[in-house]
Amino acid sequence: MLLSLIYLIAISAEAMTGALAAGKRRMDLFGVVIIACVTALGGGSLRDIVLGHYPLGWVRHPEYLAYTVGAALAATFLAKRLQRLRRAFLWLDALGLIAFTLIGCAIAREAGHAPAIVVIAGMLTGAFGGVLRDVLCNEIPLVFQRELYAVIALLTGVAYLLLLRLGVAENATVLICLGGGFAARLLAIRYEWEMPKFVLP
Amino acid sequence: MLLSLIYLIAISAEAMTGALAAGKRRMDLFGVVIIACVTALGGGSLRDIVLGHYPLGWVRHPEYLAYTVGAALAATFLAKRLQRLRRAFLWLDALGLIAFTLIGCAIAREAGHAPAIVVIAGMLTGAFGGVLRDVLCNEIPLVFQRELYAVIALLTGVAYLLLLRLGVAENATVLICLGGGFAARLLAIRYEWEMPKFVLP
Amino acid sequence: MLLSLIYLIAISAEAMTGALAAGKRRMDLFGVVIIACVTALGGGSLRDIVLGHYPLGWVRHPEYLAYTVGAALAATFLAKRLQRLRRAFLWLDALGLIAFTLIGCAIAREAGHAPAIVVIAGMLTGAFGGVLRDVLCNEIPLVFQRELYAVIALLTGVAYLLLLRLGVAENATVLICLGGGFAARLLAIRYEWEMPKFVLP
Repeated sequence: MLLSLIYLIAISAEAMTGALAAGKRRMDLFGVVIIACVTALGGGSLRDIVLGHYPLGWVRHPEYLAYTVGAALAATFLAKRLQRLRRAFLWLDALGLIAFTLIGCAIAREAGHAPAIVVIAGMLTGAFGGVLRDVLCNEIPLVFQRELYAVIALLTGVAYLLLLRLGVAENATVLICLGGGFAARLLAIRYEWEMPKFVLP
Repeated sequence: MLLSLIYLIAISAEAMTGALAAGKRRMDLFGVVIIACVTALGGGSLRDIVLGHYPLGWVRHPEYLAYTVGAALAATFLAKRLQRLRRAFLWLDALGLIAFTLIGCAIAREAGHAPAIVVIAGMLTGAFGGVLRDVLCNEIPLVFQRELYAVIALLTGVAYLLLLRLGVAENATVLICLGGGFAARLLAIRYEWEMPKFVLP
Repeated sequence: MLLSLIYLIAISAEAMTGALAAGKRRMDLFGVVIIACVTALGGGSLRDIVLGHYPLGWVRHPEYLAYTVGAALAATFLAKRLQRLRRAFLWLDALGLIAFTLIGCAIAREAGHAPAIVVIAGMLTGAFGGVLRDVLCNEIPLVFQRELYAVIALLTGVAYLLLLRLGVAENATVLICLGGGFAARLLAIRYEWEMPKFVLP
């Protein structure tokens, strides 16, 4: 299935962004690997724990850990080149965000949850790996402050449910949402679309 | 049931305090909404995850999310007025603390847990939404440092179990604990009752 | 069983180290007790939540909470003397790390998980109580930055599985791993063995 392939690309890309974030905080290789795994697999794990959906993905498929650990170690070796590839990273990260979101929605929908929970499951999967990464790096989570990210995950989840309800086939729905969500995220980066800030003195 | 009504007031009040806390950290509206939901629903979610009590409250009742999101957005519009209403907030927050605690105790007791676990379930429900809020806001949790808060939740839980064991009816027990816990919390705020500090140089 | 006795010593020791860490952040007695419980019981709780292994240890055995609370309160009274006993603490903490790790591996193995998950369950049990403590104390987790700690837990888990696969009896395996892991941790402290750092400018 298309989503499975994109999933493997996405966890590798997210692991690399996690490893680079760890490198900015002087962590050792163990810390780098843990932050990478949390970034790549933490959103899906949080979704499964919140929904009581056991076993977690990487517990059933330990090979996912091999991908993330491998990607994290590769990132430490290639760090200087990767920083020059910043644009490629943003693209991979955007693809990962949407793929994670759609996978999260599909899992919650198959488990029979209400529409609001399906959308939230997608958003947790897509955006909360980064939240856990930022908590472990002792930062206020980026997604609460920067350009549209989790909101695009939410909108992608809403579109996914709407299209299915309109009778669009599942594969077509996934492709449309993948394309639309990806485009929306790239536009958000390019034009620095942000949510209104709420600043209290 | 009385507790259900108070619960809805309490999650709205806690969502508003969460939104105001987010506003002090320059978050965007998405961050505000997430921090509000975590503050209002995080304690109960943590309790359910720790006890393996699925589905979580808001997963079964997604309308709770609508209340917290609505309260959070209302708080951003009314922020200036709400700051003048600081006393009303402290009262609502105190009511929420005790209501959450009693609901947490009742759920753990119905699940047949030991008395110590019932009391802890109440305390997690009452006080740990605020702990999760502070972790996401990158702060040392307030309840570990300020006036009696979680301790009042613990004492309320103990009183709840004692009264039930003495044969007092459940409704009467809830009302007595609600009144007593609420009064204790207001007294703690007014006279700045604190736990002894443990300071290591 | 030997591991059970060592477990009780280990949770007491870990609770004391948690209490001392809380004391350095001006927490009140409630905060001290919570940080102590999280340090001592948080790693095992995280393992059980990740594996869906309910009820959690301390929910089934609330007396564990009594040990950790007692040890935490004792630590606040004896704080000055304990700081002189720094070496004894490091030894107890090392013993706790290995005992926790072996218990975590044994639980995951009995539940029939894959070897990689068994090793990770041990590492979560041994090292992630400290990670949760540091997150609550608003610090970047120590184990991501200092001498070999979680890595020794990982290696201990690998040795445990290898010895069992080679047909060594379970008791002998536990004793060998306990001795070897303990020695490795003490050597890591003495000679300041560290993982390579990954520092990104």
